[in-house]
Amino acid sequence: MLSIDLNCDMGESFGAWRMGNDAELMNYVSSVNIACGFHAGDASVMRKTVEISLEKGVAVGAHPSFPDLQGFGRRQMSLSAQEIFDIVLYQVSALKGICEASGAGLHHVKPHGALYNQAAKDSQIARTIAKAVKAIDKNLVFYGLSGSCLISEAENLGLKTASEVFADRTYQADGSLTPRSETNALIEDSKQAVSQVLQMIKEQTVTATSGENVPLNAETICIHGDGENALNFARTIREKLINNGIQIRSR
Amino acid sequence: MLSIDLNCDMGESFGAWRMGNDAELMNYVSSVNIACGFHAGDASVMRKTVEISLEKGVAVGAHPSFPDLQGFGRRQMSLSAQEIFDIVLYQVSALKGICEASGAGLHHVKPHGALYNQAAKDSQIARTIAKAVKAIDKNLVFYGLSGSCLISEAENLGLKTASEVFADRTYQADGSLTPRSETNALIEDSKQAVSQVLQMIKEQTVTATSGENVPLNAETICIHGDGENALNFARTIREKLINNGIQIRSR
Amino acid sequence: MLSIDLNCDMGESFGAWRMGNDAELMNYVSSVNIACGFHAGDASVMRKTVEISLEKGVAVGAHPSFPDLQGFGRRQMSLSAQEIFDIVLYQVSALKGICEASGAGLHHVKPHGALYNQAAKDSQIARTIAKAVKAIDKNLVFYGLSGSCLISEAENLGLKTASEVFADRTYQADGSLTPRSETNALIEDSKQAVSQVLQMIKEQTVTATSGENVPLNAETICIHGDGENALNFARTIREKLINNGIQIRSR
Amino acid sequence: MLSIDLNCDMGESFGAWRMGNDAELMNYVSSVNIACGFHAGDASVMRKTVEISLEKGVAVGAHPSFPDLQGFGRRQMSLSAQEIFDIVLYQVSALKGICEASGAGLHHVKPHGALYNQAAKDSQIARTIAKAVKAIDKNLVFYGLSGSCLISEAENLGLKTASEVFADRTYQADGSLTPRSETNALIEDSKQAVSQVLQMIKEQTVTATSGENVPLNAETICIHGDGENALNFARTIREKLINNGIQIRSR
Repeated sequence: MLSIDLNCDMGESFGAWRMGNDAELMNYVSSVNIACGFHAGDASVMRKTVEISLEKGVAVGAHPSFPDLQGFGRRQMSLSAQEIFDIVLYQVSALKGICEASGAGLHHVKPHGALYNQAAKDSQIARTIAKAVKAIDKNLVFYGLSGSCLISEAENLGLKTASEVFADRTYQADGSLTPRSETNALIEDSKQAVSQVLQMIKEQTVTATSGENVPLNAETICIHGDGENALNFARTIREKLINNGIQIRSR
Repeated sequence: MLSIDLNCDMGESFGAWRMGNDAELMNYVSSVNIACGFHAGDASVMRKTVEISLEKGVAVGAHPSFPDLQGFGRRQMSLSAQEIFDIVLYQVSALKGICEASGAGLHHVKPHGALYNQAAKDSQIARTIAKAVKAIDKNLVFYGLSGSCLISEAENLGLKTASEVFADRTYQADGSLTPRSETNALIEDSKQAVSQVLQMIKEQTVTATSGENVPLNAETICIHGDGENALNFARTIREKLINNGIQIRSR
Repeated sequence: MLSIDLNCDMGESFGAWRMGNDAELMNYVSSVNIACGFHAGDASVMRKTVEISLEKGVAVGAHPSFPDLQGFGRRQMSLSAQEIFDIVLYQVSALKGICEASGAGLHHVKPHGALYNQAAKDSQIARTIAKAVKAIDKNLVFYGLSGSCLISEAENLGLKTASEVFADRTYQADGSLTPRSETNALIEDSKQAVSQVLQMIKEQTVTATSGENVPLNAETICIHGDGENALNFARTIREKLINNGIQIRSR
Repeated sequence: MLSIDLNCDMGESFGAWRMGNDAELMNYVSSVNIACGFHAGDASVMRKTVEISLEKGVAVGAHPSFPDLQGFGRRQMSLSAQEIFDIVLYQVSALKGICEASGAGLHHVKPHGALYNQAAKDSQIARTIAKAVKAIDKNLVFYGLSGSCLISEAENLGLKTASEVFADRTYQADGSLTPRSETNALIEDSKQAVSQVLQMIKEQTVTATSGENVPLNAETICIHGDGENALNFARTIREKLINNGIQIRSR
């Protein structure tokens, strides 16, 4: 039986500010990536989000980031490899301890935002993040952009990986994501998104904007939690996958 | 054979700013309390300080604080019990993970600054901190002001404790520290400090400013790392203790 | 003709997090207190909020706070008088410069949250804030809790003041606000709130929870921007005031 | 009579951490660039540094930075033009207000660290910073790397500029600084540094590492405040310049 993981970024509230609809969204996904206080989240938001994750039975992951709260970790930063190792170690350790105190285990790590994007293109950054993850627990699953050095570097270190694909992003002929600066970067039609996802899971290919079918490893699908239709889209994609005989579960 | 722990706050550098003489001081103490990024320290400073601690063979503790970098965690803050639980859980977990990734174990927790002072007087805060520590690892040793509710609340929860006394502070007839606002709060003469410490260890009493001898549980002595004479004082007190047949070791 | 100022806290978004409905609310109030980055707001939010304020023609004030982003400036902190002077000077100066660069003038200063509450009870803190405001511009209007030392200390320094009252809070026989910990602290019925406000403006009294009519200086009414009914309430109170022949304008 | 400005970064302490020897160094320089709280400094450090600057009679400038306290503003960040405009506006306004409250005027602005370096190569960033400075006060002097777009963009906007050169850095044949990654980037011999500076001022040229003499506009020399020999070097260069008949004064 085919299966797929649906993952979603969570725990992105901070202090008095609310973001996302975590408890609702957790009904539809199989794994969550919890912000660790550097781009979003704080100690209280993290603990609460871990507790809700436990109730909902989703796999809990850490979502470490550059230290950039005001920029939500989306702005590129030039940190040394050592600095990246250290901030990943710090953030993932913090969340792991919170999980363990709540009786949960930490399941995976997925870098956030600019850190994810830079690591997907820079093998030294990717390797550094993977090393920090392995130093914490060699059984953690490493989530990264399918086909990127995030996956290959983590595999080189012997980590179990989850190749991430996107329901609502288009792909280029080389298998990379169409940059957001392009007008056709986003898939706004949910039917088209579902169709792309089904093809990814069943065929392990994606139809690039150029029209070609490109091979693609699809193990986890990123579900966006923000935006007005986030809940609807999550519910829809889950239903369609199940109706197509695909099991939703974390790796 | 009598023994005592000498503890010192460490890892108080931050970013480009240096503070303290950690590597030197670790030659004289048996346990260190490492800042966790909320009042001092950052992910890189923490990792480096843990590595040096391992080399020097001192017991590593976490030194969690209120979130007040600019105030060095010394300013009183009114956090809810839940907020205090969460920030202690976050900070101690972060340091614990860094220790484990370096092959070290976390040995103890000592609250910092205003958090320590408020908890020493407020049993709800003390209990909350102790609960967070226990939720992380029930074998962690809890360091707190001798005779205060920090110790009693941790004991009530079944934690092993270390009653902290001060070499360079005078005591009141009720066993409490003379407030820093008083002119006679500090012992600046190192001979007098050594003498007070020897009495504390051998007699388990202290001579209060009123002249009375007051019973006092002395299990760990706080050695201050800042100040011009910090290194000299640490070296002196270590030598005098050893010369008096007292073993220096962590609990 | 009777007149009153309606003020509202604004610019409380931060980074990726939205809070409040500033542009809408500005249709109903005559002055706004803009967060300065210490408890909410950031440089971009501040600049945008100043621009909207200019468009809407409301008087712009600074809303300085303790440095506590995660706690939204609502947690008590013990800063020295010098530290309070310095953080008020920094924050108000930042907003003043942003105003001037946008072609606006800074009209007033209202301390935020725990800083406001502590200053309302501690004349040294009140005086310190007032001194910082005067050092920046002696023509700034100082907003503070009616009847508190915030007002008296600012007046002692020769500052123009605006005595603030609350539509949705009950008062004690001594003219102070009923603490939020009491069950009858809040007025949830908007008719009762409007009625209290009309009495405050017309009679310069308030009916305390004990039933007595207490004299009260009412020059500006705090309109809360958060909560589901914030917009409705702001619209309602504005209409009722105008219908009662009261002019809405900043001092 | 020839004249030159000697500028130095100051106010780089933060909270409990001391950095630099501001009061001593101010005896030797004619202008100072004061950190504004984003990479170093805090409200109290800024106010104190302004007061010392007033006593010493040096020209006060703002030293705005990326928001990166832990990285001391030295790490590249990708902020939008609007974000850069806003953070410069915020920081410079804060320092300007502090100056005015102390009875001083703000004289100039010099971007810090990565912001300076990125702006020196990216005319959009340079123009954005210059626009923010002009929006605050069109009479502020804009300090930037000699020959870079920092200078040309500020001049295009009609700002008065100060072309900055370095005593302790070597130059390339195209007039740019030798990257720090090169072994010959730094001039460690103070005689050679003085000699380079004298040539820059008298001849308005510099001898590149390739041996060529390259034209260079030298209006202000950056004196580094950190490092063990900072004070000695500042004293030496000041004496040598004066002995060579060159006046030390801000523009």
